[in-house]
Order: sequence, then C-alpha cells, then structure tokens
Amino acid sequence: MTYCVGLLLNDGMVLLSDTRTNAGLDNIATYRKMFVFEDPGERVIAVLTAGSLSVTQTTIARLREAIDEPDADAGSSIMLAPTMLKVAEIIGNTLASVRQDIDEKMTAAKVSTSASMIVAGQRAGGAMRMFLIYPEGNFIEATDDTPFLQIGEHKYGKPILDRVVKPGTSLSEAQKAVLLSMDSTLRSNLSVGMPLDLAVIEKDACRVTTRRRIEAGDPQFKAMSEAWSVALRESFTQISI
Amino acid sequence: MTYCVGLLLNDGMVLLSDTRTNAGLDNIATYRKMFVFEDPGERVIAVLTAGSLSVTQTTIARLREAIDEPDADAGSSIMLAPTMLKVAEIIGNTLASVRQDIDEKMTAAKVSTSASMIVAGQRAGGAMRMFLIYPEGNFIEATDDTPFLQIGEHKYGKPILDRVVKPGTSLSEAQKAVLLSMDSTLRSNLSVGMPLDLAVIEKDACRVTTRRRIEAGDPQFKAMSEAWSVALRESFTQISI
Repeated sequence: MTYCVGLLLNDGMVLLSDTRTNAGLDNIATYRKMFVFEDPGERVIAVLTAGSLSVTQTTIARLREAIDEPDADAGSSIMLAPTMLKVAEIIGNTLASVRQDIDEKMTAAKVSTSASMIVAGQRAGGAMRMFLIYPEGNFIEATDDTPFLQIGEHKYGKPILDRVVKPGTSLSEAQKAVLLSMDSTLRSNLSVGMPLDLAVIEKDACRVTTRRRIEAGDPQFKAMSEAWSVALRESFTQISI
Repeated sequence: MTYCVGLLLNDGMVLLSDTRTNAGLDNIATYRKMFVFEDPGERVIAVLTAGSLSVTQTTIARLREAIDEPDADAGSSIMLAPTMLKVAEIIGNTLASVRQDIDEKMTAAKVSTSASMIVAGQRAGGAMRMFLIYPEGNFIEATDDTPFLQIGEHKYGKPILDRVVKPGTSLSEAQKAVLLSMDSTLRSNLSVGMPLDLAVIEKDACRVTTRRRIEAGDPQFKAMSEAWSVALRESFTQISI
C-alpha cells in the first residue's frame, strides 16, 4: 500500500508521499510516488500515485512521452493543456487507458489492477487546483470545505487532518500536519514506509518551492514524531473522563 | 459499518461499541452491538459484534437458545463451557454456521455476508480472556503484546490505542482511551454513530462492574471530546517542525 496526502491552502499546496511498495509481505521495495512536471514560473504539476506500480509507472511514462512528442498539443501534453482541469482530464484518461491495457493482460490471472492519483498544480494566470483521480479516470477536486485529498492507506492519518487543516492553515503548520498524519500511518501500518517525499508549492510561484526527501532516522522527523507522542500522552493524561 | 474495541488489561477488561447499522446510506438504524451473558460472580461473557446484522443477530439468538435448552451441556452452552477457550469455540462455530446458512440464501443475489465478533470473559477460577472471532469462526486472542482487539472501522481509532494502551493501563485511563479512539472514528466516518455502549469487567469480579450507555449529546462525553480536540490543537501548535 501507500499513503499520499495533498493540502490545498490559501498560501499554497503541500504534498507528502511515502515510498513503500510491496508485492506480498515478503517483497518490499522503495519507489518514488511523487512526480513533478515543471516549467518554473509558468506551470507546475505534481502527481502522487497509489496502487498497482505497473499501472502508475506506465501512466507516468506515457504522460512524459506525450510531453516529449514532437507534435505534442494542448489535448495530449499536460505541459500544454490550457487549464488544470484539462490536465486532470488528460491524466485521468491516460490512467484509465493504461489500467484497461494491463487489466486485459491480467484477466487470465484473475487479478485486477487499480491505481489512483492526486494531481496538484497551477499555471501562470490560473488558480491552484488539486484533484483526486480515481482508477476509472474520473476525478474530484479539493475545495475550501475539504482542503485535503488522500490516497492509499488514508484512514489512520485522517483524524489529525480533520482536526487541524483549514484553508487558512499556514504552509509551515501544513507541513507539520501532513508529517504527523504520515507518522500515525507509519506507526499503525507496515505497508507504508520511509523515506518520505515532501513538496511545497507556494501560491503563484508556479514551481516547487520546497522539496525534501526525509530518510528513515531523519533527526528532525524523529524529534517531531517523539515530541508529538509525548504531547499526545500528556494531553491524554490531563483529559478527565 | 461499526466500531467496537476491547482492551484486556491487568486490572480488567474495557469494552466499547457504537450502535449504528446501515443498509446503504439511506437506511440507518440503531442496534445494540454489545451483548452480555452473566452469572454474576461465577461467569461473565461479553460479545461485541460487527458486520451483517442478520448474521450477528441470529448468532446471538442461537447462543441464547443453546443456553436455555433443557438439555444444554458444556459443549453447546457458553454458560456451561468449561473454559473461555471453549466459549470462543462455541461462538466461532455458531457464527460460521449461521453465516453459511445465510450465505446459501444469498447466493442468488450474489451478496456475501460477513461478520466478526469480540468475545471477552472470565469464569470463576479462570483468567480473563479476550478473543477476536473471524467470519470463518477461527479466532485470535489478545495478549500482553497486543492488549486490544478491534472490529469494524478500526483504522481511524488505532493510532491513539497504539500510543497509550499497555497492559498496566488503569481502568479509568482505559475508558478514556477507548472513548477517544471512538471519538476519532465518529468524526471521520459517518457509518459509525452514537449512542455508545461502554462496559467494564473488573478482574475476578466475573460480572460487568460498570455499564453505561452514552447518548448523542452526553455532556460528559462531549466535554471530553472537546477537551481532547483543544489539547490536540494546542499540542499541534507547540510542536516545532
């Protein structure tokens, strides 16, 4: 499994993904699940992926190919698409078509492949937008009411987001929120694992303004995680029933 | 869905269940999911249920019938079974057989029924034991390493349990832990709902020593839930990234 989360806030977008993939419990590997397509200052698109690795890798590869095609146009390349909505459509269609191709190969094995994605981006002159793309290629969009999207093992890390994330949350608080949301997930579910990829896209920068890989044992993450544990336990002790 | 949780601690056992059942989103009802079989001072057995209501109700009804049979014996009645392990076996077998009966009826509709249970109990002279019974009738037991068992929508409420519950946790702290675990679940998942049923079985009492139904709007639960939200938000603010 996987855990990826994206926040769409007034000041920008914050994205976090883990890197664990597994085929069964005895075949674990590390793969990046965050992909950035960037024309700095003009357009930035970040894609987070969950689900079948063969589906998500092929989808990303096809998106890259479509960008590099000599006759790439606004209908095929996410770097030329006129709006973020169109970007989400291209990615959704690519994902659905890859999935269909792979599903056909898998029919004999009676295995079904599935994958979902979070797409976050902004083009110069447009608004920041964030979408959750379903395995079938359709999608929903983050709004003020629900300023975060999650894919993969989303349940363990949802309570903290439900409590603290609002559109007005600062980018620094937001990074804390996604890291603590990930921390809860890492503690409770083996199929989500370090290292982590964190990205911040400040509003109107149209580029990734902060990008950080957090390795296992990262002292800053570890200190935060421990401080949170202590704070939780202390709060717990102080609450009266 | 459902959320039920049971803690097996040195001082006793603490059990909490919600009461929401739904057939689709537009057919929601309240049903008790905690059932107590008691011969005070001699034997106490509490059963928490999750899954198909027709399966769990029929299972509980058959367990009651088996107790009331004039020729009930140690192999059929959970109130006569010589050990808690045997109790878990009887409940597991009853659950599996009910499920099979109902599944046969459902084949035409291509609907599968599933249910699981937590069984907690003690008989005079024996140890407290707690089991999680799977839909197939097999079961696992809570131990010192893992002193809690959950059924239903267990993920939202797991991080708090992972952090604070140890075998040495006091019964009062334990009640707080299960209530806060439930609170996180209620906030994040519509299919789990008030009122709640809370039971405490103190060690060697062989009866339910505290039993409480917590209705929606219960001032004590509400105050605890709000205090926890405030404490979480304050802790969150104080953590440095």
